[in-house]
Formats: sequence, structure tokens, C-alpha cells
Amino acid sequence: MSRILVHEVGPRDGLQVEASTVPTEKKLEWLRSLVGCGLDLVQVGSFVRADKVPQMADTDALFRTLSQEPHRAVLSGLVLNEKGLERGLEVGVELFCMGVSASETHSRKNTGMTTGEAQGRIVAMAKSALQAGKSVQVSVQSAFGCGFEGPISEERVLGIVRAYLEAGLRNISLADTAGHANPEQVERLFQSLFRLDRSIQATCHFHDTYGLGMANIQAAMRCGVTCFETSFAGLGGCPFTKVAAGNVATEDLVHALQRMGRRDDIDLGSLIGTARDVAAFFARELPGRVYKTGAIAIS
Amino acid sequence: MSRILVHEVGPRDGLQVEASTVPTEKKLEWLRSLVGCGLDLVQVGSFVRADKVPQMADTDALFRTLSQEPHRAVLSGLVLNEKGLERGLEVGVELFCMGVSASETHSRKNTGMTTGEAQGRIVAMAKSALQAGKSVQVSVQSAFGCGFEGPISEERVLGIVRAYLEAGLRNISLADTAGHANPEQVERLFQSLFRLDRSIQATCHFHDTYGLGMANIQAAMRCGVTCFETSFAGLGGCPFTKVAAGNVATEDLVHALQRMGRRDDIDLGSLIGTARDVAAFFARELPGRVYKTGAIAIS
Repeated sequence: MSRILVHEVGPRDGLQVEASTVPTEKKLEWLRSLVGCGLDLVQVGSFVRADKVPQMADTDALFRTLSQEPHRAVLSGLVLNEKGLERGLEVGVELFCMGVSASETHSRKNTGMTTGEAQGRIVAMAKSALQAGKSVQVSVQSAFGCGFEGPISEERVLGIVRAYLEAGLRNISLADTAGHANPEQVERLFQSLFRLDRSIQATCHFHDTYGLGMANIQAAMRCGVTCFETSFAGLGGCPFTKVAAGNVATEDLVHALQRMGRRDDIDLGSLIGTARDVAAFFARELPGRVYKTGAIAIS
Repeated sequence: MSRILVHEVGPRDGLQVEASTVPTEKKLEWLRSLVGCGLDLVQVGSFVRADKVPQMADTDALFRTLSQEPHRAVLSGLVLNEKGLERGLEVGVELFCMGVSASETHSRKNTGMTTGEAQGRIVAMAKSALQAGKSVQVSVQSAFGCGFEGPISEERVLGIVRAYLEAGLRNISLADTAGHANPEQVERLFQSLFRLDRSIQATCHFHDTYGLGMANIQAAMRCGVTCFETSFAGLGGCPFTKVAAGNVATEDLVHALQRMGRRDDIDLGSLIGTARDVAAFFARELPGRVYKTGAIAIS
């Protein structure tokens, strides 16, 4: 069995949609806990304009601090454009994440570009990052359906994947931005993807809008996907999709991986503690299950 | 692909653990909606002592009323002992559900009997019900783990299943009473179960305590399980397990089955309406997802 990797994206995908901005010191407290607990990758933030997304205004500062400290996890950052890439290169991003939406409507609303324009730009940015000696993960957003357009054809997704492969980019994430995926569809799409190139390092990102996030992860895992993006306490949502809903909770996935004997080196207690603190900070019940129940324990 | 059946158990498994007792007229309103919307089976209630479980005090009255009205769904009832069976036979139960816990501790706490004693008694009751011309489903509770005992060996579960098969009982449900199951375990156990007898009509009942309910359903479906017990709005929990948590929500499963093209004859809008009314009645957010988001819709 392949080792399953967990990429914590809550500090970016979760916090960017919260109404209240988390103070930098509180973010650092959560991030230090996340990068030290055995998770494989942690997304610290995104490089966007502070006036547009104030929740991410301290991304540069966070990277400057964390990259100087010992950290077990790879520090990843999301970039949307060349300016973001430039900032990320200056502050110690280790893995650059960037992507193209397979939905024309989502692409235009999110980036102001057509998918074709976005694809050319992202491929060029990815090459620059690689030339700078960095790791790169490229994604296809809305790969399983779109809140505006509905179904997205497999061919649209695979077309973007082919462009990535032609550019030598094999670390590829498919994101279910709207939460439309179902397990049977996930299996079909990943079977098609791996037929293009068996050596793709595939990652998934499933929103749990309709309650299928964990079932979709399980389906992807069966197909050979080995990395999953999840969010502490199940935070998350996309401001540019119609029905916002959280990601699969990191601690729920880690708990499941422990139960299946697939990972025993991630400190679940630490993850649960962080998720509880996040829920306390926002003073509401968040979607994650295990931070509420605790891990399975015998009386 | 086999037809997947949905057995709504919320009126029993959900309402029995609620602090407030639902008035009979309100229950009838929900039940009429559930038995008419295309679900295959609906569990109306359990035949227990009204002084012990006041939430189920009107089970006989509900059956008397519903069995006289046109109903698309099979009306099922849970019985724990001979007295319950007698009552059920009088009031029009169509499918009798009864079971044995694979956990000694759970069995003693729930029924006061050892699993061996319970097994003999349940098999005898099942035979009586069959002789009376009724359908019977026998279950193994705590089949995937127990909140008191922890792991439950496959051999304990299969031992009870063998006793059922020897008695000619092939309609068998495995219940994850505590929510301990994981998808890989589900596959292993059902593969073993079907090796005993490929013709078993297998049903599953997964609590979603740790967020794996839907993934477990998907895993069971892959193995050939064709019937799932779920609960409207995700109500539920077992008063005799340590961490109470709801079932997979019926409307979430039906939504998923629609998305996968497996059932298009269940009125999801009606189910969502009922779940919303249930949430309004209890005046709190319930675990189901789709009753909150609505079905996937394109703007």
C-alpha cells in the first residue's frame, strides 16, 4: 500500500472565507502546531492582494517566520499570478500551488480569465517556480462539477491535465470546488487520468458540501491517489462558488487513516486540540466530527 | 447494477433518543410523507415498554393507523422480545427487525442477556414471525466495534450470521452501532459474509460518529450490499453506547444515489422538506447536509 500524504489547507482555504480575520499571533500558534504534528504539507496562506482578501494579508510575514523555524511539514503557498509567485519566492515558500478552473464561468469569476488564458499563464508560472528550484503542484479546480455550469466534462479536465503533462508538470491536484463529486465519478475520472500517465502524483481536494467528501477520498485512494488536501475542523468554502461548504476535516481523515492502519505517525491528539481551539476562536460548531467526539476510545 | 434499497429508520432509531417526545400527530405527518415518497422501507417504531422508552409509546397506534392507509413503503418495526413480537403481529407490522449484539457488554447493557442467550431467543422469535407469514430481518449489532469492548472479531460476527443461516434466515443486517467501522474493514467483513452464503440479502446500518458513515456505505455497496438503513436529517444514536451520534442522513444518501444514477424514483424534495420540518421541530441544526444545502442546483 502506498503511503497516504495529508496536506493541511485550512489556514488558507478555511481562513480566507471567514468573516473575521485571525490575528497573526493566533495563526502562528495554529500553524506551528500543524507543521509540527506529523502532517506532510501545510498551506500557510495565499499571495493575494491584502485589500481584496484581508484574511490573507499576513501571508508573507507568516512564511518569513515559519520558514526560519524548524518545521516537519513542507510549507506550501497558493499563488494566483506572477506577482504572487514573486512574493512567494522571496519569503520561503517550499511548494507552490496554483491552478486553472475547468469551468469557464468559475474561471472568469475567480480570475477574470478564460480557462485557456489561465492555463497558459499558470503553466508559465509553474515553469518559473521549477526553474527557481521550488516544488510545484498544479491543480484543476471545479474538476467534478461547477455551481454555475453544473457538470464538467471529463474531456475538459483531461485537456488541462494534458497541458500540464506536456509542460513536465506531474504533481497534479483535482479539486471538487463545489462539492459535486460522487464516488463513482471520482473513480472514473482518476482511472482516465492515470491512463494518461501512470506516474502522475495525484492529489485530491474534496469539499463536503453534500456529505460525500470522505466517501470521495476513499474512492480516490482506491484508484491510487496518494495525497489529500483537508482542513482543520472542516473549515472552508470558496467565495466564488454558490453554496459554500467546508472541506473534509483533517483530523477526521487522520483518524480514518489510523483506523485503517495507513498512518500512525501523525499526532491526532494535537490535531484535535488545534481544531478545538479553532472552533473556540470562531465560537461556533464547525463541520469536523472527531474534534467533537474525540478519537475512538474504549471505556 | 443491483437496485439499492433505502430503509428509513429515523422514526425509531432517531426519535427514541430525543429528549422530547414527538406528538403522535406530528409523527404521523412525517411518517405519511416518508412512506409515500418512494423509500422502500420505513421503520415506524419499536415495541418496547412505554415506561422505559416513552418516545416509542405510540408505536402500536402508529402501526394501526398506517397499515390501514395506502403506503408505498414496507412498514417495519423493531422488536426486542416475545411480548413485542406479539404486539407487532396484532397491529400490522410487515417486516420484523430484531437482532443480537456481537459485543457481550453491549448485549448485557442493552438486553440483560448474554449474546448466546440473545441469539437463541432472537432465532426463535424470527421463526415465529416467519410462521405467522411476516418478513423478518435479523441483525448483528456492534458488528464493527463496540464503545465498551473496542474491536469485535470477525469470527464473533460470522458466528451469529451462521446461526441465522442455519435457521433459514437470509435477510441479515450488520449494524455499526458505535460508528467504529472504516471502509477497508467493511469490505473485509462483507467479503467474509458473502463467502458464507452468496445469497444473503445484506443490509447495513452505519452511525456517522466519526464521519465515515457515507464512505462505509459506499464500501458496502461495492461488496454487494443492496439495502441501507438511514435516518431523516441524520438523527439517531444508541442510548447504550458511549458516544451517541446520528445515522447517515436519508436525504444525503438518496441525493448521492441520484447523482450516481442508481435511484431516480425517490422524491428527494419531499425528503428534504420532511428533514427541514424535523430540524425545525427540534429547533437545532441536525447532522444531515443536503437538507441544509438543498440538492445540487445550477444557477
